[in-house]
Amino acid sequence: MADTLHLSGDPVDLTAALVDVPSVSGAEEAIADLVERSLREQAPHLEIVRSGNCVLARTNLGRDRRVVLAGHLDTVPVNDNLPSRREGDVLHGLGTVDMKGGDAVMLALAATAPEPKSDLTFLFYDCEEIEADRNGLGRIERDLPEWLAGDLAIVCEPSNGVVEAGCQGTIRVEVRTSGVRAHTARGWMGVNAVHAMGEVLRRLEAYQARVVDIDGCTYREGLQAVKITGGVAGNVVPDACVLTVNHRFAPDRSPADAEAHLREVFDGFDVVVTDFAAGALPGLRSPAARELVEATGGVPVAKLGWTDAARFAALGMPSVNFGPGDPLLAHTQQENVPVAQISGCLEVLRRFLL
Amino acid sequence: MADTLHLSGDPVDLTAALVDVPSVSGAEEAIADLVERSLREQAPHLEIVRSGNCVLARTNLGRDRRVVLAGHLDTVPVNDNLPSRREGDVLHGLGTVDMKGGDAVMLALAATAPEPKSDLTFLFYDCEEIEADRNGLGRIERDLPEWLAGDLAIVCEPSNGVVEAGCQGTIRVEVRTSGVRAHTARGWMGVNAVHAMGEVLRRLEAYQARVVDIDGCTYREGLQAVKITGGVAGNVVPDACVLTVNHRFAPDRSPADAEAHLREVFDGFDVVVTDFAAGALPGLRSPAARELVEATGGVPVAKLGWTDAARFAALGMPSVNFGPGDPLLAHTQQENVPVAQISGCLEVLRRFLL
Repeated sequence: MADTLHLSGDPVDLTAALVDVPSVSGAEEAIADLVERSLREQAPHLEIVRSGNCVLARTNLGRDRRVVLAGHLDTVPVNDNLPSRREGDVLHGLGTVDMKGGDAVMLALAATAPEPKSDLTFLFYDCEEIEADRNGLGRIERDLPEWLAGDLAIVCEPSNGVVEAGCQGTIRVEVRTSGVRAHTARGWMGVNAVHAMGEVLRRLEAYQARVVDIDGCTYREGLQAVKITGGVAGNVVPDACVLTVNHRFAPDRSPADAEAHLREVFDGFDVVVTDFAAGALPGLRSPAARELVEATGGVPVAKLGWTDAARFAALGMPSVNFGPGDPLLAHTQQENVPVAQISGCLEVLRRFLL
Repeated sequence: MADTLHLSGDPVDLTAALVDVPSVSGAEEAIADLVERSLREQAPHLEIVRSGNCVLARTNLGRDRRVVLAGHLDTVPVNDNLPSRREGDVLHGLGTVDMKGGDAVMLALAATAPEPKSDLTFLFYDCEEIEADRNGLGRIERDLPEWLAGDLAIVCEPSNGVVEAGCQGTIRVEVRTSGVRAHTARGWMGVNAVHAMGEVLRRLEAYQARVVDIDGCTYREGLQAVKITGGVAGNVVPDACVLTVNHRFAPDRSPADAEAHLREVFDGFDVVVTDFAAGALPGLRSPAARELVEATGGVPVAKLGWTDAARFAALGMPSVNFGPGDPLLAHTQQENVPVAQISGCLEVLRRFLL
């Protein structure tokens, strides 16, 4: 492992160096140390704070506008895909997509932009890939909330180098049916809770998901059974069945709207909300977001998966996802990124911010 | 615990004494010892063999006909329902119904009928309430098959003191659906195996079970989902779902017939047989069975649950269930038997056999 990162060098080499420091969720100390040390050494113009395994850095130039850039340092577990490996114009390895390419772009920007047009805040954080209550950015939001404040949030999650705006919300509910146990030799004396779930599955099959256009971005919703359990013993009519359903909803709806919708879809059944996370409106009408989109020269699209963009949206900030790599490759063994996307993203952000 | 049982005394007291010797499946040694010792002492006219925790006893009088009586000595686990407790005309406690009342009737008959019209075989056996391959009667069938031979088998399982004829068969199948995994944020890229199970549940709901009359006994079939599982993670479209279905079928069908029927019902789906047991035809047209029915003075009914009667039927013997106690109370904490049924059953068998 390198003692320090070369922040102002080739951002592709920088990505590879970050990939080669394993940082599975919960074990980010080494990479956080390296990021902190390199920033203190090569970006003396920044205010730098270390908090747990988060590294926070910002300019304090008194600009009218502040842009917040966020990147998590952790990865999903290693899957025989380390160290990094470059083949021609493609960099392979765990985290090349999710999201050390984005981290490298942020670090390069931090070190090489002492006089940006907007004040800049860089948030490197831990534990994004695991339970929401361990998310490092959530901890910073609670403990050091001023570090999240700004006029635009750019979460540098993989987005193929185009602006993926906002994000969809997610809600999980359990639909429960009940019945009456009986010996299967006298099944008519019971009421079968699994059979009763047939009607729920019928509604799921027939469900027509909304397609919603917001600020020119198309959000495609979904309603999927993700788990089903029921049964007592091989000779007993089951008296309970539980179906877990995950609904992904466009950010024009709140979690409460989504819940009301599900209660309508499953009218007549017992519905219990088990967890939810609000989506984020794209916020593309804000001047800062518009300028970023212009700098990319591309057309923004909707973010369908949930990201920490929603956290900033909940604070009232326009928030977008923008980073190198194909999000469909995230969490796969084959993660890889075309190197041109890494330098391309850095170039767009420099155009936007300098 | 008594050193010996008083076999020729009150069969209700004898039932209580048997109930008060705990004999959960796998722990029948004490009760088998007691039964063996009592028979050797009080029924010297019988040939007696001890095999494991089975006690076998028979007359060898050269009669034209042999009647086999069978009773298991084990019970389901104790559930705060020991020792026995008599309240007025009702005896309460674990095993009063399933099936120490029947065992007591058999023991009383064994000790008090040295000169029956038919030769008699008494089979007391272990491990009926657990996995089929540990069933003591199955072991005797393999090791000492001549002990099961006869012209009529009476399994003294609880039957409310009326003849419950034959028994239904049982078959379990797994119906499996498959799909394609995808992130629920992009659910349309996957195929949901749980949704696909909707059609299977629809067929179960619509299923019309046969009601079959054989020898005047009405067998009511059933088809019940007993277990369902599916799901990968809260954000993944499931690629597999497994539904276990239990079919109880009338004894006019073989397990192969029943399997063919289920393949028809679930046509288009992957169906795997996991276990089955053949039913038993009532065999009420045989002279021996007719005489037993006459002795009861009642009308025989179909046995819906599976019992070891099927084992004898498979050997070509007419086989019925006849014993004190309501089978619906078997395996419940509240097991109890009206004492008149115990002495009533003994009286019927004496009328039939002496």
